[in-house]
Amino acid sequence: MRLCDYIAQFLVKQGVKDIFMLTGYGAMYMNDAIQQSGIKYYATRNEATAPMMAEAYARVRQSLGAVCVTAGPGATNAIPGLAEAFVDSAPILVLSGQVESRYTTHKIGIPGLRTFGSPEINIVPIVQSLTKFAAVVEEPSQIRYLLEKAVYYALSGRPGPVWLDVPLDMQQMEIDPSSLKGFVPTAESNIGDIDKSVKQAFEMLSSAKKPLIIAGHGIRQACLASQLRSLVETLKVPVIFSRFGQDLMPHSHPFVFGHGGGKGSRYCKAIMNQADVVVSLGCRLAPQFTGHDFEAFAKDVKIIMVDIDPAELEKPGIPLALKIRAHLRPFMDALLNEVKLQPSGNWESWVNTCREFKQKNPMVTVASKRNPIDLYYFMYRLGELSGKNHVLVTDAGSNYYVGGQVWNFESGQREIMSGTNAAMGTSIPLAIGAAVAAPDSQILAVTGDGSLELNIQELKTISHYKLNLKLFVINNGGYASMRKWQDTYFDGRRIDTEESTGAGTLNLKQVAKAFDLEHVCIERYEDIDVQLKKIMSDDRPLFVEVMTDNNQKIFEAFKDKDG
Amino acid sequence: MRLCDYIAQFLVKQGVKDIFMLTGYGAMYMNDAIQQSGIKYYATRNEATAPMMAEAYARVRQSLGAVCVTAGPGATNAIPGLAEAFVDSAPILVLSGQVESRYTTHKIGIPGLRTFGSPEINIVPIVQSLTKFAAVVEEPSQIRYLLEKAVYYALSGRPGPVWLDVPLDMQQMEIDPSSLKGFVPTAESNIGDIDKSVKQAFEMLSSAKKPLIIAGHGIRQACLASQLRSLVETLKVPVIFSRFGQDLMPHSHPFVFGHGGGKGSRYCKAIMNQADVVVSLGCRLAPQFTGHDFEAFAKDVKIIMVDIDPAELEKPGIPLALKIRAHLRPFMDALLNEVKLQPSGNWESWVNTCREFKQKNPMVTVASKRNPIDLYYFMYRLGELSGKNHVLVTDAGSNYYVGGQVWNFESGQREIMSGTNAAMGTSIPLAIGAAVAAPDSQILAVTGDGSLELNIQELKTISHYKLNLKLFVINNGGYASMRKWQDTYFDGRRIDTEESTGAGTLNLKQVAKAFDLEHVCIERYEDIDVQLKKIMSDDRPLFVEVMTDNNQKIFEAFKDKDG
Repeated sequence: MRLCDYIAQFLVKQGVKDIFMLTGYGAMYMNDAIQQSGIKYYATRNEATAPMMAEAYARVRQSLGAVCVTAGPGATNAIPGLAEAFVDSAPILVLSGQVESRYTTHKIGIPGLRTFGSPEINIVPIVQSLTKFAAVVEEPSQIRYLLEKAVYYALSGRPGPVWLDVPLDMQQMEIDPSSLKGFVPTAESNIGDIDKSVKQAFEMLSSAKKPLIIAGHGIRQACLASQLRSLVETLKVPVIFSRFGQDLMPHSHPFVFGHGGGKGSRYCKAIMNQADVVVSLGCRLAPQFTGHDFEAFAKDVKIIMVDIDPAELEKPGIPLALKIRAHLRPFMDALLNEVKLQPSGNWESWVNTCREFKQKNPMVTVASKRNPIDLYYFMYRLGELSGKNHVLVTDAGSNYYVGGQVWNFESGQREIMSGTNAAMGTSIPLAIGAAVAAPDSQILAVTGDGSLELNIQELKTISHYKLNLKLFVINNGGYASMRKWQDTYFDGRRIDTEESTGAGTLNLKQVAKAFDLEHVCIERYEDIDVQLKKIMSDDRPLFVEVMTDNNQKIFEAFKDKDG
Repeated sequence: MRLCDYIAQFLVKQGVKDIFMLTGYGAMYMNDAIQQSGIKYYATRNEATAPMMAEAYARVRQSLGAVCVTAGPGATNAIPGLAEAFVDSAPILVLSGQVESRYTTHKIGIPGLRTFGSPEINIVPIVQSLTKFAAVVEEPSQIRYLLEKAVYYALSGRPGPVWLDVPLDMQQMEIDPSSLKGFVPTAESNIGDIDKSVKQAFEMLSSAKKPLIIAGHGIRQACLASQLRSLVETLKVPVIFSRFGQDLMPHSHPFVFGHGGGKGSRYCKAIMNQADVVVSLGCRLAPQFTGHDFEAFAKDVKIIMVDIDPAELEKPGIPLALKIRAHLRPFMDALLNEVKLQPSGNWESWVNTCREFKQKNPMVTVASKRNPIDLYYFMYRLGELSGKNHVLVTDAGSNYYVGGQVWNFESGQREIMSGTNAAMGTSIPLAIGAAVAAPDSQILAVTGDGSLELNIQELKTISHYKLNLKLFVINNGGYASMRKWQDTYFDGRRIDTEESTGAGTLNLKQVAKAFDLEHVCIERYEDIDVQLKKIMSDDRPLFVEVMTDNNQKIFEAFKDKDG
């Protein structure tokens, strides 16, 4: 069989049903093999978005995502999406086409040679630091080993993207699959004694007066949502989420207090401020979550951090009482056993205090019902009216912050966003990937009129594939978040955020039409519920323009004094 | 003064009048300093295109181009354009914002840490192999040294992009410019004895029966167009161009034979086939120019290659009779002197043979006048009607090939394209950069309905800045070039190029409207001249849809047998 067919069949065996790609000469045999394998291919309009779609696909399905791009610019175009998948820990495999081996700078090895064949770029050194594994297929006999190794790295430990560069001559080579050598992972090192760690953590927790669990992305990635729930319910302690953890448990659950950190809610700020022992499970405790110098927490807080990525445990400036490098599954299983065996603290009054914080510091009030539409009110209603299996998606800027503060997820709902970077222009490709992954769900994606422009080409992907995706475009005069910092730091000297540079001045109705999407406009708060219900009852893609206040205030936990 | 102001003033001193940027929090002090410095900033709609615009700007003005992007995704988004500038040897400086130093993985140095601050990506390792120099500003006292070093590398030898990553704390630091250390370049090594090289080259050339000069990008970059003309006129030898060299001399000149190589014209193929001694000046002799195994040339051809980049001289499979590593200016000056002093060969009959080839193998004939429009005819008329100071731009695919085969440049005209990669989606950003660089010129940019989609967001940049730019969008049903190889290699199994994936199915009239551009449509060959004259007499931006034959045949010198 052709090597390219081996690759495609390997993907099928990994459970890959869909792939995101832009075809090209340098990947032509792989393109053909993918088509023949029965994997459904989704054509992106720029390779930049293909890894973003694959990221959402991987996160929604909790399995491998796949991308195929062509050589040269096809590969470099894909880097923006690759970077997202890397920091967001998404297990995706990017296959890039390449010119014939003899025309690759990789094979030639002349230092400083910029390019050789056409179009040729030596992609592996570029993507090396944005992947867990990246390699060129140099010999056809390597293919099984390289694919198995790549997928092992993508999925194991802290997941992340991997990359294989496949020259044209390799793609078309005939191989005998039965003669190929496989990959055998070596045993993992530096995993400590779980029993000891669990005992230490349990002791520290038992001594707490105001314990708090922080649940992060690692829990989702290890498929431990139900274990988290058991742990919280057995311990009877409050839990807050990193942005990635928001959809782990229903927010109506009495021990759930939503999104913490700098972009979190007012009441989460109060809870984090008072906690004395914190158990962080699969959350990297980023500065945007902990604040500068850990300002979000009390000075004498004891933090237990459990993570599989050793680098995250070694970050400076994080005063950890206990660092535990462990896979979350055995750790959480053992901790739950420990908790069930021994009595821990009674934290009812602390939990009640947390509930009081929440009650007294609502993010949406009667005052939010106003015109022009308050973004908090719109986002809140969108969340409240969303259905059980809906996937919510946000983009960079105001809608990202507000979504984290007002959405109360229910069981079965998912949130997909550029969690680490809050990168502009990611909402559309992430929503497309989610829609492909979950064809029976409805995707409710929010973007801003500034962010919309970055990957506007993919609107055509939405309309072409008739995805059940509603895109809500917040019309707030473009780059509202940027206007805010420019006003704060530079006496209102504004740059690139006003009509002077054309930011946010597109006629959105015309844009929807150009990309074959039906346009709906929400202009008044009184109409939100009726319009949203109608929109959600439709299974066609829709482009919904939401006219909101251009001077929207956003709550920032580490800056606002009123929390 | 603030370090960011020092950067902006340094750019001003380098002659930078315009910069391409998308503002962002991580670059906010630089954004502010640029605005205050009087440099005009052009807001791009995605950072991917900013380096492409700067590339065109640098190539048209023959000086430094500049870009400023923000941290994290701002920086990684810019890589597609950076890769283009690297392989196309464009001297551009990219300034990226960055989070505070203490939150950078660069400073922290923990192996494997993916990201720290928000949004933070350690960009230097990623761009290292796509730049001539890349560094992080670690101390404010380094800034003069780093800027001078970066710009020296960008402009010296074979030009190319450089990158400086400037953390937020550095941007706002107060510095005393008088105390800063500068950069002193070390003496260049490995430049051989020019006199000896010139003598050897001259001797070889003198012994030729059918000499040929190949003029490449290096001549333009060293500003040697007039020296080339003197050399050709004194020697009285035919000259052909790499794609980058096409605009070096007027094509009406009796010794000029246009574009050679695989994408060149039928008559160039015949000339290259017969030449016995070839002097290549500043051309990298890429496989797409020489063919596989040098098939474009006669078996016993003697090739003299003159280049400043030592890596290009060492590529395998190129049977060079003489490798000369030299700066082109002293080499060409010395060669011209030598030629003037001594009699060289008499090549009149060889030149006449070349002229006969040209006459007998026209790329456009009476048969090209047909409907649906033959792309050759349209491109030919566009070239013929273009004005003296017009800049012509092409994108990937059919229009790229045809432009190289039928455009007869005149003195003062320029061509700007993705010369090395022929990358999809580059026409619009390159045209914008050219328009900013040459506000008194008219930009005639061609793209295809497939390529258009990749950077469609920048249509708004064209309309917003009211650039004197005519965008010709070839409507050929999308991805015409891809259809061709799919039909050739895969029995017509087509992927991603048919209406099945939505490629090339945008309603272009609506697209123009969405991005505030006036739409014009050319549908019949009989109307081309009248419509083009009207279009070129207008100084507003225009979106011109050109309906062409979906089954356009493209001449390929190394594949077509009829050449």
